[in-house]
Amino acid sequence: MTSIQDVIDRILQDIPGAPLADTVDTFKCGDPSQEVTGVVTTFLASYAVIQRAAELGANLIITHEPTFYNHLDDTDWLADDPIYKAKRALLEENGIVVWRFHDHWHRHRPDGITTGVVRALGWETYMPDSDMPLFTLPETSVGALAAELKAKLAIATVRVVGDLAMPCRRVGLMVGAPGGQWQIGFLGTTEIDVLLTGELHEWETSEYVRDAIAQGCKLALIVLGHANSEEPGMAYLVDWLRERFPDLPITHVPVGDPFTFV
Amino acid sequence: MTSIQDVIDRILQDIPGAPLADTVDTFKCGDPSQEVTGVVTTFLASYAVIQRAAELGANLIITHEPTFYNHLDDTDWLADDPIYKAKRALLEENGIVVWRFHDHWHRHRPDGITTGVVRALGWETYMPDSDMPLFTLPETSVGALAAELKAKLAIATVRVVGDLAMPCRRVGLMVGAPGGQWQIGFLGTTEIDVLLTGELHEWETSEYVRDAIAQGCKLALIVLGHANSEEPGMAYLVDWLRERFPDLPITHVPVGDPFTFV
Repeated sequence: MTSIQDVIDRILQDIPGAPLADTVDTFKCGDPSQEVTGVVTTFLASYAVIQRAAELGANLIITHEPTFYNHLDDTDWLADDPIYKAKRALLEENGIVVWRFHDHWHRHRPDGITTGVVRALGWETYMPDSDMPLFTLPETSVGALAAELKAKLAIATVRVVGDLAMPCRRVGLMVGAPGGQWQIGFLGTTEIDVLLTGELHEWETSEYVRDAIAQGCKLALIVLGHANSEEPGMAYLVDWLRERFPDLPITHVPVGDPFTFV
Repeated sequence: MTSIQDVIDRILQDIPGAPLADTVDTFKCGDPSQEVTGVVTTFLASYAVIQRAAELGANLIITHEPTFYNHLDDTDWLADDPIYKAKRALLEENGIVVWRFHDHWHRHRPDGITTGVVRALGWETYMPDSDMPLFTLPETSVGALAAELKAKLAIATVRVVGDLAMPCRRVGLMVGAPGGQWQIGFLGTTEIDVLLTGELHEWETSEYVRDAIAQGCKLALIVLGHANSEEPGMAYLVDWLRERFPDLPITHVPVGDPFTFV
């Protein structure tokens, strides 16, 4: 039999430096010694994603982001919370193991999440260095680029800082929420026209870009939404896993953008 | 003469517990011993806001949020950054002092930021406890509430988690970005239909609300945008300061929402 632990061990064989000593990539619930019946990959193991995994008969959810509403999946502060308790009960009733694949998937070479996004965009040929998400596109505008991103990644609305009419070619991609110092450090040291990112703090990167524009720089920022910017990397993970586990049922269940824009 | 330091000292006289030992409310640049020529209040001292302050002849900017793209206004990591250097040069050329009024303004009783937002909304009579931003509104829907917020706070677009048709009356307001544990703790212990907040981490409060809805709870979340949710508190600060400094030119310069929604 193949246990859930066996699946995780096999995954980590292909991640440089794994297992990391300090990582959020841990089991969040369930018994990994049980036989694996099926795998669901997702950006985030929401209540609805867990319900879908149960319907599919999958007892392993591989999630990129936390299950319990904080980066470390600390649950002490949630001990009396009814939403948390119902979510944990759903997991336990269905014998589901949740394992997070965040740090290690980003440390795959090339980055597993970014690879999935680049494939979804069809931008492989615009990326000279497979380990550096910097693209040189045919000349477009910020507005047309936003429209392309929305269409290819199935996003309802993106947030833009900058001039939609600005011509652009050099595009940097930082999926997820890497933090202001990473985003700003990238902008400060790289010749790019547009930075794409998943999420930011609204007193950090967006304000840096606003100041840069006020100073006359030709620069723009497109904020895709965290889930929108990383879900393709968890869809791509299905292909990656099928090469290693050809007989295992593996399904991507997208969690979707939580937001309606009104 | 009245120095900039005198202005700050007078402000802090009306803040319970001031001066706080551990606070981000510090001078970010300039010489506070100089005579104050005018005050600008703003949500965030952007490059454009600094330019406007210089045009107005004001040498004190009171900002709610950071000036240099991180909460503590650390600048070591920005020493070689051209956008940072140009911003600092603009401040120095104009002899402008920037002082942050974040922690102390929130500790004013009632909270200075929340007071400004409540006044902008005209919701004073719906708030039974002036120190707890919980409102009981005439029955409305999430969609109609979002429309009211957009109109009264001049917001282009808000982000919603939940059903726009859901009826609602009990509304909680958490301005700014108080963090997931505060937002979720509030939701877990308070009978409310809709939480309004400024900003969140997309793996925290929005996912908690999404799970609550999937579990059948009648709950919604409206994310106003950080600047949108707090700027009225820096506009209200002008009135508050004029009572204390009737002869000083005091102007609110809104920084505006950085984002265009596309």
